[in-house]
Amino acid sequence: MRAKLMAEFFGTFWLVLGGCGSAVLAAGVADVGIGWLGVSFAFGLTVLTMAFAVGHISGGHFNPAVSLGLMIGGRFPARDLLPYWAAQVIGAILAAAVLYLIVSGAPGFSGVGSFASNGYGEASPEGYSMMSALVIEIVLTAFFLIIILGATSQKAPAGFAPIAIGLGLTLIHLISIPVTNTSVNPARSTGVALFADGPALAQLWLFWIAPLIGGAVGALIWKAMASED
Amino acid sequence: MRAKLMAEFFGTFWLVLGGCGSAVLAAGVADVGIGWLGVSFAFGLTVLTMAFAVGHISGGHFNPAVSLGLMIGGRFPARDLLPYWAAQVIGAILAAAVLYLIVSGAPGFSGVGSFASNGYGEASPEGYSMMSALVIEIVLTAFFLIIILGATSQKAPAGFAPIAIGLGLTLIHLISIPVTNTSVNPARSTGVALFADGPALAQLWLFWIAPLIGGAVGALIWKAMASED
Amino acid sequence: MRAKLMAEFFGTFWLVLGGCGSAVLAAGVADVGIGWLGVSFAFGLTVLTMAFAVGHISGGHFNPAVSLGLMIGGRFPARDLLPYWAAQVIGAILAAAVLYLIVSGAPGFSGVGSFASNGYGEASPEGYSMMSALVIEIVLTAFFLIIILGATSQKAPAGFAPIAIGLGLTLIHLISIPVTNTSVNPARSTGVALFADGPALAQLWLFWIAPLIGGAVGALIWKAMASED
Amino acid sequence: MRAKLMAEFFGTFWLVLGGCGSAVLAAGVADVGIGWLGVSFAFGLTVLTMAFAVGHISGGHFNPAVSLGLMIGGRFPARDLLPYWAAQVIGAILAAAVLYLIVSGAPGFSGVGSFASNGYGEASPEGYSMMSALVIEIVLTAFFLIIILGATSQKAPAGFAPIAIGLGLTLIHLISIPVTNTSVNPARSTGVALFADGPALAQLWLFWIAPLIGGAVGALIWKAMASED
Repeated sequence: MRAKLMAEFFGTFWLVLGGCGSAVLAAGVADVGIGWLGVSFAFGLTVLTMAFAVGHISGGHFNPAVSLGLMIGGRFPARDLLPYWAAQVIGAILAAAVLYLIVSGAPGFSGVGSFASNGYGEASPEGYSMMSALVIEIVLTAFFLIIILGATSQKAPAGFAPIAIGLGLTLIHLISIPVTNTSVNPARSTGVALFADGPALAQLWLFWIAPLIGGAVGALIWKAMASED
Repeated sequence: MRAKLMAEFFGTFWLVLGGCGSAVLAAGVADVGIGWLGVSFAFGLTVLTMAFAVGHISGGHFNPAVSLGLMIGGRFPARDLLPYWAAQVIGAILAAAVLYLIVSGAPGFSGVGSFASNGYGEASPEGYSMMSALVIEIVLTAFFLIIILGATSQKAPAGFAPIAIGLGLTLIHLISIPVTNTSVNPARSTGVALFADGPALAQLWLFWIAPLIGGAVGALIWKAMASED
Repeated sequence: MRAKLMAEFFGTFWLVLGGCGSAVLAAGVADVGIGWLGVSFAFGLTVLTMAFAVGHISGGHFNPAVSLGLMIGGRFPARDLLPYWAAQVIGAILAAAVLYLIVSGAPGFSGVGSFASNGYGEASPEGYSMMSALVIEIVLTAFFLIIILGATSQKAPAGFAPIAIGLGLTLIHLISIPVTNTSVNPARSTGVALFADGPALAQLWLFWIAPLIGGAVGALIWKAMASED
Repeated sequence: MRAKLMAEFFGTFWLVLGGCGSAVLAAGVADVGIGWLGVSFAFGLTVLTMAFAVGHISGGHFNPAVSLGLMIGGRFPARDLLPYWAAQVIGAILAAAVLYLIVSGAPGFSGVGSFASNGYGEASPEGYSMMSALVIEIVLTAFFLIIILGATSQKAPAGFAPIAIGLGLTLIHLISIPVTNTSVNPARSTGVALFADGPALAQLWLFWIAPLIGGAVGALIWKAMASED
């Protein structure tokens, strides 16, 4: 169990450091910056790389909504849910702290701003409403779980799941960064919200509720589809 | 059969939500927007992810032209063609409806515009003629079927087909978004045309005819090549 | 043999239509254009997709310099070299013709310009000298052959070669589009040179000589390395 | 052993020619340049391609910090460390020399500038402090080793390691180009520092110290995790 929690800790640390780090450090630089396309690849590649590296230890969740969905899908024991959530959230918070340390070395540093946090309304990158945020986070997390449960099922080609899941997270970011800055992962949202300026902490509830609902819905859709198969 | 139709429904839903969604929400944002390169990856990754997730259930067509080509190629029973087409078109329409709901939460929302629909002439992103649109949609769908039939043939490396097919769709978009906004998929064209402003519905005929012709041509080329092998 | 030549014909057709097509149609569009990064992915994905689709038929060369290198590397019979070269060059020319047809449907069409042709000096995208062009085309084709011979060797992981080779071609374009518009493939250079305005035909010699030398050098390096192994 | 050193020589040559070459030649071109996103893919694809091509010969390190980490992780004999380092550094220097030759053919050439070298403070692309540079190089190299040791462990899916490791290096660049221009590889830093204008040589110490510390830390983290597994 200790190896599993270490794997979830380091995997979620990497997701936040890599995904949010690329957003904060590299996305908006003029001319050569990586933009939201680069940030989308960064988030996806954190999961692709760590799922190959430690997926065989912990299952490679790195996300409380994924752990919940896998539990509902019958792939993960309920008694491990809270320890996994704890390891994921602690990893996310420490990664945000390390990122804060790095960012504070920027010339003329005077605060981290939104710090790649998630938001809706005034805090949405393009100003989308709370309703848009709820819908897109629920729907995208549901499909994320369908991809995860499908790509790791026994009938799917063996070994490829980290590619499908990692690039699935890239795809999810390509769609939804303008709406909520993309969460689908309550741990990721929590880690940076603790350091961000603005309403990130006050809006954090949505980025726990919506991904968890979405994860559960996706697992139920998968179970309905697989039981007919 | 019910599992297969669910898989085609959700797969095509994901293709439209992810591909058209990234185009509508994220492509044109100033400075950090994902551009047509990001949209091309998004379309391709919808197919890559769902082909890994549910390809083992339904074959992972998500596209009426693909179902037709696979039927002509001898890989798919003719009696399943119309049910697959129905599941694909319904999935595409519902995805467009969900995308409409999300987009309507944008600040100052006053209509969806072209809504990532396909078009030629005045409705082509760069103004290409109907003849250019016909040629490119037929040729690209033909190659899409060659890739699909080849990568899923017994002599091809097992398990990799979703990568070849998904990134093949990415490539197709890299070429042809300027010409037609890229269809090669009548269901995708139909889903957003129902909600789009402008001539999308009036031009929808081309995005059924050309991909279906192309899919048939590609399947015949593949059969000619494989029979010599 | 007929199946092999069909595979080389269609594969090289796809390389030129997809790679040069994306460059001509989509690279330079303002704001949302795919740029050289998108063109690099397009070239690479043409090879990735067709190597998965028809690599098991013909070996998936799609390039006279690759066929030469594989012959020198002992993987391809000398008697097949000229038929392969013919199929590749004819495929490239026909693809350029189809691309010309599509491009001629652009609004206000008045000529194809450089038509994604290769060049040096005044015809280099960034004005690099003939010496720079020679060096980079030789070196990059040599490494392309090392990648091909290595990734398809019996000790390499089975099935992955199309990914390594396709993304290797993407990488080669990321480096060298500014210098020569990237050839490493005499067939690709020939196809578009026949339709291009400017000095492309007069400079075509370099894009046969340098890739062929590079392909031979790469094969010899590989043989030296493998014989020590 | 000679084959192994040849493999490390050519692999590191390719890493510097492709990664630094794309940065110097193609990143900053107006409108169509590949930007830092393209450079990130270029670095990652050098490793992905050569790990598939020659990984089965030498292990595919191409990086002194990787060799050290693998030694600490128990996967690489200590007696081979210095020969590997020598082959890597020589390959990097020769690649930088070839790149210099190509770049000198640019119109109006008057020097290579920073030549994609690594730096902090005034030499950091965005002006980050020495402390930021130390932290990010140590942390990213540590995770690079966790990815390498994990993806090549016996429990990980066989054959996929070059994808995980190569795209892991892409991810590392997406995060840290703005801070240090991304090293995580002392050979890569050394190769271009010898030719660069500015403080690259004077700052080279950090790009040996930090990656080597990070590589060691990553290997120890992996060992702690795997021993619990």
